[in-house]
Amino acid sequence: MTPTPSRESAERDARHNARMTRKKALMDEKIAQAQDEYGLLLVHSGNGKGKSSSAFGMVARALGHGLKVGVVQFIKGGMSTGEEQFFRRFPDEVSYHVMGEGYTWDTQDRQRDIEKAVQAWDVARQLLNDPQIALVVLDELNIALKHGYLDVDVVLRDIESRPELQHVVATGRGAPPALLEAADTVTEMTLVKHAFKSGVKAQKGVEF
Amino acid sequence: MTPTPSRESAERDARHNARMTRKKALMDEKIAQAQDEYGLLLVHSGNGKGKSSSAFGMVARALGHGLKVGVVQFIKGGMSTGEEQFFRRFPDEVSYHVMGEGYTWDTQDRQRDIEKAVQAWDVARQLLNDPQIALVVLDELNIALKHGYLDVDVVLRDIESRPELQHVVATGRGAPPALLEAADTVTEMTLVKHAFKSGVKAQKGVEF
Repeated sequence: MTPTPSRESAERDARHNARMTRKKALMDEKIAQAQDEYGLLLVHSGNGKGKSSSAFGMVARALGHGLKVGVVQFIKGGMSTGEEQFFRRFPDEVSYHVMGEGYTWDTQDRQRDIEKAVQAWDVARQLLNDPQIALVVLDELNIALKHGYLDVDVVLRDIESRPELQHVVATGRGAPPALLEAADTVTEMTLVKHAFKSGVKAQKGVEF
Repeated sequence: MTPTPSRESAERDARHNARMTRKKALMDEKIAQAQDEYGLLLVHSGNGKGKSSSAFGMVARALGHGLKVGVVQFIKGGMSTGEEQFFRRFPDEVSYHVMGEGYTWDTQDRQRDIEKAVQAWDVARQLLNDPQIALVVLDELNIALKHGYLDVDVVLRDIESRPELQHVVATGRGAPPALLEAADTVTEMTLVKHAFKSGVKAQKGVEF
């Protein structure tokens, strides 16, 4: 779990360079006919519903193909979530991590929030270093970046030096420009209509 | 599987009326403090990714809460999908139906497409009549409506007469106005960025 830092770092650098070279080559081609397969970075942003749900739908999809998945949830809500209860049923296939107790926008303990976020990122980095894992979900990462709890350059460096075929999905409002820039696909979930917005209680199986 | 039509119809009418009365009462209240719990109709539309994925994320969420789920896929693609392979692992918890072989926009056999869509709706109606099922996913229903393969009034009538606490998610581009009008929540998935849009082959675990 704790590889020699220097060796790990050298390997990461090599993978980063390989990925960037490959990405540049793809960009240079600019051909619609390309049929290359490589790991995508997807970002789900916006104020609508479905940012996390669609990441968890991708988890189901990946498991259906016999692939292994890693999940880090950067914000733990007060309620236990259905997705966590469900995917923990598959410990051999899903490496599931819920970090911390949520952020302290209420209590304003910024230093504690940063420590929690950094701990969560340490777990994320291990998943991003594991070529056995085909999909890494970084749920609500964007919030941690937005609040400056994590350094976007460090995060991007680790994401970009991941194994060649590994997919990554980062969810949450407020993704910083550098993450959007690095992403292969950005989808914005927009709330078009929400009847009884605050009038109907959060519903089990829908909102959590 | 085939209840007496008249009895089934009377029960549906009664449920429809009850739902509409209840919905009107909620609307009339117009209070943000309401804490009522009832089944929601969610529509995922737009040209972006994540419409179906987020519905399948909700399936995982519901299963995590020990709820039962029904899925009807109105369009079967050429590729076998990861979500189908995965959720078929849980036959006691998920009633999974993939209808037909996809539509014939290429071959232009409209009559056949209508027949397939109507058959799919018959299955959907049974799920919408089953109070044991907490969540019904109508994947790509919007497409069938958009092409006029199904009558939106019939579809809405069946959806609105479902059991009180049952949630429904309809996905796909081109949801008709009447469906959006009836929905509790409408989320539009907007494609903000798609690198190498047609240059990178559809990736297992991401797109299918």
